[in-house]
Amino acid sequence: MSLLDIFKRRASAPVARERLQVLLAYERNNRDQPDLVAVLREEIMAVIAKHVQVNQDDVRITMDRGKTTSTLEIDINIPNAGAAASTAL
Amino acid sequence: MSLLDIFKRRASAPVARERLQVLLAYERNNRDQPDLVAVLREEIMAVIAKHVQVNQDDVRITMDRGKTTSTLEIDINIPNAGAAASTAL
Repeated sequence: MSLLDIFKRRASAPVARERLQVLLAYERNNRDQPDLVAVLREEIMAVIAKHVQVNQDDVRITMDRGKTTSTLEIDINIPNAGAAASTAL
Repeated sequence: MSLLDIFKRRASAPVARERLQVLLAYERNNRDQPDLVAVLREEIMAVIAKHVQVNQDDVRITMDRGKTTSTLEIDINIPNAGAAASTAL
């Protein structure tokens, strides 16, 4: 299976809020190597949290470890700053 | 355009070496907001470089800033540790 086949997914319904999506795929030849994706997951989440106020309920993380390919999907709905400001008026 | 349509790409030829791919998409409603993807690009690259020996020649970065959607693709070919070891024998 090609790495890019993983991303051939059906389109989801449009979301009203802003959305950040991280798709990470690691295709390895050496099965003895540790799963880099698991390590990167935590660190990339930390990087995002520095810039975006992330609500745990608005984060969906899907991880799939195969024999030679690991994939990670981080899907974050971000409260729209503009919408929040107009509510405050 | 849906966020996921971006990832409907044709499969590339298989690569001999290990491969790490990061696809990042940001769909924003507020055009006045700064481009989060540009900021995350540098920090995610730094995170990866902590764990993987990244050769500049083996990194391909594609960035696309649209009016409401920005996308970033980081494609890294990683020298296979196993192959390097067998060469040293």
